[in-house]
Amino acid sequence: MPQLRLALAQVDPTVGDLPGNVELVLDGARRARDAGAGLVAFPEMVLTGYPVEDLVFRESFVAASRAALDELALRLEGEGLGALLVVVGYLDADGPVAPGVDAGSDGGPRNAAAVLAGGQVVTRYFKHHLPNYGVFDEDRYFESGDTLPIVRVRRGEEDPFDLAVVICEDMWASGGPVTAAGEAGVGLVLAINGSPYELAKTDTRLDLCRRRAAEAGAPLAYVNMAGGQDELVFEGDSMVVAAGGEVLARAGQFAEELLVVDLDLPAAAGDIAGELAGMTVERVTLDLPAVETAADAPAPRLADRLPDEASVWAALVAGTRDYVRKNGFRSVVLGLSGGIDSTVVATIAADAIGAENVVGVSMPSDYSSEHSRSDAAELAERLGLDYRTVPIAPMVTSFLANLHLTGLAEENLQARVRGVILMGLSNQEGHLVLTTGNKSELAVGYSTLYGDSVGGWNPVKDVFKTMVWRLAEWRNADAEARGETPPIPKNTITKPPSAELRPGQLDSDSLPDYAELDAILGGYVDSDLGRADLLAAGHDETTVDRVVRMVDLAEYKRRQSAPGPKISLKAFGRDRRLPITNRWREHRV
Amino acid sequence: MPQLRLALAQVDPTVGDLPGNVELVLDGARRARDAGAGLVAFPEMVLTGYPVEDLVFRESFVAASRAALDELALRLEGEGLGALLVVVGYLDADGPVAPGVDAGSDGGPRNAAAVLAGGQVVTRYFKHHLPNYGVFDEDRYFESGDTLPIVRVRRGEEDPFDLAVVICEDMWASGGPVTAAGEAGVGLVLAINGSPYELAKTDTRLDLCRRRAAEAGAPLAYVNMAGGQDELVFEGDSMVVAAGGEVLARAGQFAEELLVVDLDLPAAAGDIAGELAGMTVERVTLDLPAVETAADAPAPRLADRLPDEASVWAALVAGTRDYVRKNGFRSVVLGLSGGIDSTVVATIAADAIGAENVVGVSMPSDYSSEHSRSDAAELAERLGLDYRTVPIAPMVTSFLANLHLTGLAEENLQARVRGVILMGLSNQEGHLVLTTGNKSELAVGYSTLYGDSVGGWNPVKDVFKTMVWRLAEWRNADAEARGETPPIPKNTITKPPSAELRPGQLDSDSLPDYAELDAILGGYVDSDLGRADLLAAGHDETTVDRVVRMVDLAEYKRRQSAPGPKISLKAFGRDRRLPITNRWREHRV
Repeated sequence: MPQLRLALAQVDPTVGDLPGNVELVLDGARRARDAGAGLVAFPEMVLTGYPVEDLVFRESFVAASRAALDELALRLEGEGLGALLVVVGYLDADGPVAPGVDAGSDGGPRNAAAVLAGGQVVTRYFKHHLPNYGVFDEDRYFESGDTLPIVRVRRGEEDPFDLAVVICEDMWASGGPVTAAGEAGVGLVLAINGSPYELAKTDTRLDLCRRRAAEAGAPLAYVNMAGGQDELVFEGDSMVVAAGGEVLARAGQFAEELLVVDLDLPAAAGDIAGELAGMTVERVTLDLPAVETAADAPAPRLADRLPDEASVWAALVAGTRDYVRKNGFRSVVLGLSGGIDSTVVATIAADAIGAENVVGVSMPSDYSSEHSRSDAAELAERLGLDYRTVPIAPMVTSFLANLHLTGLAEENLQARVRGVILMGLSNQEGHLVLTTGNKSELAVGYSTLYGDSVGGWNPVKDVFKTMVWRLAEWRNADAEARGETPPIPKNTITKPPSAELRPGQLDSDSLPDYAELDAILGGYVDSDLGRADLLAAGHDETTVDRVVRMVDLAEYKRRQSAPGPKISLKAFGRDRRLPITNRWREHRV
Repeated sequence: MPQLRLALAQVDPTVGDLPGNVELVLDGARRARDAGAGLVAFPEMVLTGYPVEDLVFRESFVAASRAALDELALRLEGEGLGALLVVVGYLDADGPVAPGVDAGSDGGPRNAAAVLAGGQVVTRYFKHHLPNYGVFDEDRYFESGDTLPIVRVRRGEEDPFDLAVVICEDMWASGGPVTAAGEAGVGLVLAINGSPYELAKTDTRLDLCRRRAAEAGAPLAYVNMAGGQDELVFEGDSMVVAAGGEVLARAGQFAEELLVVDLDLPAAAGDIAGELAGMTVERVTLDLPAVETAADAPAPRLADRLPDEASVWAALVAGTRDYVRKNGFRSVVLGLSGGIDSTVVATIAADAIGAENVVGVSMPSDYSSEHSRSDAAELAERLGLDYRTVPIAPMVTSFLANLHLTGLAEENLQARVRGVILMGLSNQEGHLVLTTGNKSELAVGYSTLYGDSVGGWNPVKDVFKTMVWRLAEWRNADAEARGETPPIPKNTITKPPSAELRPGQLDSDSLPDYAELDAILGGYVDSDLGRADLLAAGHDETTVDRVVRMVDLAEYKRRQSAPGPKISLKAFGRDRRLPITNRWREHRV
């Protein structure tokens, strides 16, 4: 029975950074070799980063990806890593790509995987199933593959095993390439992924790996990306599952990791090829030198999945860290109102990039309560932020002396003066501005455009208000469990939320209770339920009509909102595409 | 030889306004009947408006579209219009749709056409070819049809003719349903469309109609939507082309119109059906009473296509009018700097909704030149705008007294104070704010986020600076040709452009000459050319590197920019989807 020490390199590439991503793969390959691995696998499109969106339309970029693959193969060989089997995702095209040659002339761009060994590309695989829902637009970008190459790997005198590589969505469909791999009798299915995080009640990824491993009748190795790319946070959670469903190894979530596991694989037998499960199965044979086997591998890691709040927190921190870092910022600035949203965002930012790189600005007005200032100051003290105070009264007064603004216009003015202050500090000192509107607020438009919505990144964009509170409670409890001071002042969690734009204002003046609001929004926004469904779910008719109306009318604000990490089934942004000009109304008002 | 008086109803529906769109169709049907027509055709998805984007995922919306179709059929019959053949586009699903029933359970949503007569749906057709490029995401939304129904229409004692209906993209592919219709020997192909405007050098639409009419061996009638929906402007330009390529009738662009033409059609012969051109061709027979033939129709309209500047201007005006009107606004406000961009935008707005509904605000600073104020005032005078002046010095001074801002931060502050003023007037008085950054500025990020970029709609978002000047010249010349006063002050067109955020500042301090800039941007943005292609086109290396770098780094600003009408091959917005986090650099810096 052939043995394989398999390494899954759960890494965090950067979109467009081809030289950096080549180094990332080389580094992972070295570590895999040092761990005695015979095969190391990297995520979907690791060389280009993922998703690259309309960069696929630039021939120069496609050509650069192909050149990076060739360079990688040569450098692996040059560093004495030629005996290591390396699987990487990259962007290819089914034909020649060179300046002046149309990448699409022979079939268009491909979401591709390559198997590298001995300084060569042993075989290429083009993703069959292209997701075109939710945040994915792969029918826009790629041509589908229709071939499954199976690599027979013979190492020294050992019995050979048969390897099939598939890419992400290919795993989700029964009857796809994993089925064909099973019919061909492969010994190992390797799935390379760029799979974003979504908070889910069930362990969907594990269930899926088990189903496909059973279908293939072979172990299935699943390697996923970690880290953030714009609104997506890749969860990691790489794993190896036996044909019988046993989890043989599992990496942690959100962070980079090299997962190493020793596998006993079914020996290759037979040469089934040709048309299987509706595709063409081809065979390739690869002879590799024996690996100098290191000592027994340590017991493979079997990470536990994080509970809900912990996983959301980790996603927001990872997404924020990568957005800041990959866009070349070192520090952030945000307004601290003493309220729960800015408090949680400041804490996420401190966890992501260090409190010393977070500037918190208190911008009190005449309507700000004493506790707003003291809660903000206490938070800054507990976290160790760079804390400043800029009262807004002089600027607000100056506008009011020169413009006739009353009511809502005057309320919004205060928020906009704060926005100008934050942007001024950003321009002057080079910080990225964080904005702090939660998903409930974004949904109903409870914000001031170009006021509190000002900012380049919104860590809680996809977090309903009730979850913001749960996160605060969890973060404090987690700190206590670690013997640290809870960062979030108790009063910030317990006080009734208020925008403090007029005397005595409370969110509850304008909005339903957040528990009810979030339940309705979960149905209307995340699940596309109609009015009748919402009423059938037991929600109050007047409240449903009010909420639905607010959501419909706020689309124009969301269209200009900052990006933020997706954690839900349906995030605002590319995940949910609604027209601004839209007279469809569920509500009866 | 059967005769048909055909009416093409080039109408402007509103997305989501099902009752309003039903009325629009009824009104068009009445006018067609009054003109003696036997068949009237409306555009793609006229009942729902187009594109409806993620509204397709709401079962309540799909059900409402189906109900609207049934209501329309009954109301046509009820108004004595049952003998008129009516073709409409709508949203359907291939299965039962009712509350609690999954619209997708029997095949998912469909981009559909229905043929109505006698109070009934005679037949339905589901679009075969789903565009999933550019601004289109139809693979995300719809299932493809695979059947072509052909309706044999027999009216009284006349010889019958065979009618095939296809939808938009179906026309673009050779070998599609038009080919099948030709093989089946139809007498008339009717294509219903939601086809947005793009400024093009060639008459692509006519060329296409001619090719398909020849392929079908029958006249082809093409009906398109008019008016704006968010970033799209539908061009109209409905037409009827004979099998031999002769244009029998052609409507104007951008505006609603009922195009009526008398056709002699080939008589129906044979019953070819079954599998043709890879699809199932079905036959339906429809017997209708004789039409009381009115007098001979007047000679059909044969509109000339507008020249470039005139068509762009008409597109911007139509898009702006519909965005304002369909979103419930009556007036707009914008800053008037005396520069070319705000001047052109004010003129577009005045043409779209009337100068009396346009508020122009001059917001001079200490750095504003005398001509800025006088040019703005003269424009307002010539157009008859609601003109106001709000100097920004007091507010700027107030910020500077409370914050340490210098250099670029101080420049941006001025733009942001102006933004706060415009938003204040919007909130206080209910105007929609127009922003005026042209495509060249948006491309290179030559704007202040939350400053001059503030606004809900940008009429020149997709217009390069050089085209802004051409439009100004054209608009003045057009006024002169009509014996009117040219609206745009000559000095605004001839003076060197400046943001006037510091003493003596000129755009040329920061940017290449606009003619060169726009040529590079046309290649890099609109055509996805790489650096090597741009150099091969003869552009200066240093300039290319500088421009490409600016474009790459400004993605975050564009992501929060206001919508505006698409006029080019590739507009910023959903047409061009690039990651913000992106280290791919064409340039060598």
